[in-house]
Amino acid sequence: MKEAIKAAEDSMRTGQGGPFGCVVVCCSKVIGRGNNRVTSTNDPTAHAEITAIRNACTRLQTFQLTDCELYTSCEPCPMCLSAIYWARIPTVFYANTRQDAAAIGFDDDFIYRQVPLPMEERSITMKSLLRNEALTTFRAWADKTGKMRYWSSNSYAASLLTPAINSISRASLKSTRGTSPTTSPSRMTRMRVHRPINSGNSEEIIRIAQPSPASSSSKW
Amino acid sequence: MKEAIKAAEDSMRTGQGGPFGCVVVCCSKVIGRGNNRVTSTNDPTAHAEITAIRNACTRLQTFQLTDCELYTSCEPCPMCLSAIYWARIPTVFYANTRQDAAAIGFDDDFIYRQVPLPMEERSITMKSLLRNEALTTFRAWADKTGKMRYWSSNSYAASLLTPAINSISRASLKSTRGTSPTTSPSRMTRMRVHRPINSGNSEEIIRIAQPSPASSSSKW
Repeated sequence: MKEAIKAAEDSMRTGQGGPFGCVVVCCSKVIGRGNNRVTSTNDPTAHAEITAIRNACTRLQTFQLTDCELYTSCEPCPMCLSAIYWARIPTVFYANTRQDAAAIGFDDDFIYRQVPLPMEERSITMKSLLRNEALTTFRAWADKTGKMRYWSSNSYAASLLTPAINSISRASLKSTRGTSPTTSPSRMTRMRVHRPINSGNSEEIIRIAQPSPASSSSKW
Repeated sequence: MKEAIKAAEDSMRTGQGGPFGCVVVCCSKVIGRGNNRVTSTNDPTAHAEITAIRNACTRLQTFQLTDCELYTSCEPCPMCLSAIYWARIPTVFYANTRQDAAAIGFDDDFIYRQVPLPMEERSITMKSLLRNEALTTFRAWADKTGKMRYWSSNSYAASLLTPAINSISRASLKSTRGTSPTTSPSRMTRMRVHRPINSGNSEEIIRIAQPSPASSSSKW
């Protein structure tokens, strides 16, 4: 958390953006860093958490961070909280609260109150248009073979951080597609190694090891 | 909307990601495009709306799109909806619904139900840590001079899209810092031209014209 707070201070001091910093941690190592860069990069989505998640995913070449923890200097706004859900990060540590952010002029709390409202009560005007036409695309997706899905318990991250275990995992993946792992269960129970794969309609998940205690508490 | 739906089809057909597309429109012109690229770029935040907003902001060199409309092939997930709030886009048109997305396996509806929950009821574990330390940074931000704020009604976008009016606006900005506009009110009422500026503690907003009818309906 001290690193996240330092990133927030640096963001403010260097004029990159608001006072928000974040790190993503996996296997006790920082594998992603971010700070608010909205105003300096003209990107309203460049919040500290989004930046750190993108950084971690780029580094690990994965789109899900199931074995990671996120440390942020302020409670995530709804955009960043939702990004944490999409990235499948199970644990978040935060310092300042959304009310603290509101007190210095940020809209986090306002947006938290807007998101659950019925559309017609939001400050944004939202209108439905061409639903039937768009449903055709959704039906085509449902029928598509060979598509890459978001796995609900995918984690490629931890394996990439641990070369020794990773080499075993990769060998296992080659030899165990759809079968039981050939590596020692006692060693592999330290982490899950799921892999995003191109699947047909039958969902294929390669399971190498048991879920870790931290991840098994997730409701995904 | 047809362009957004086409972007969704292209995303799916080319294997870039899920069946989601989006365009951002300003002054009847498409100024940002995006499609889902989560799996192909290993970026869980690369939803169609986020990508389109970032594209529009890069093109217009602004972090707020107050005079724009967003057309998306599916109701925005909470991450994208919140990004729309941060980008100050006042109007959204959508085709498929969150329930349609859930029906083909996406978590939009699940995350909508998670975000408003008290922390302890969410599937993500959230813990407070070092708040007092982080509050020091927020206090420093409150006291900081020369910081770039998020303006609540800033729009630099429209001016950049309309060279003729833009040239007038820029001239006006030079001549009217803190004073009344010198350009014809009848011409300038077509759009607002606010500008993000470095401000001191006294908040300085350069107002050139009246809010447009579309934007004045916003509660920001």
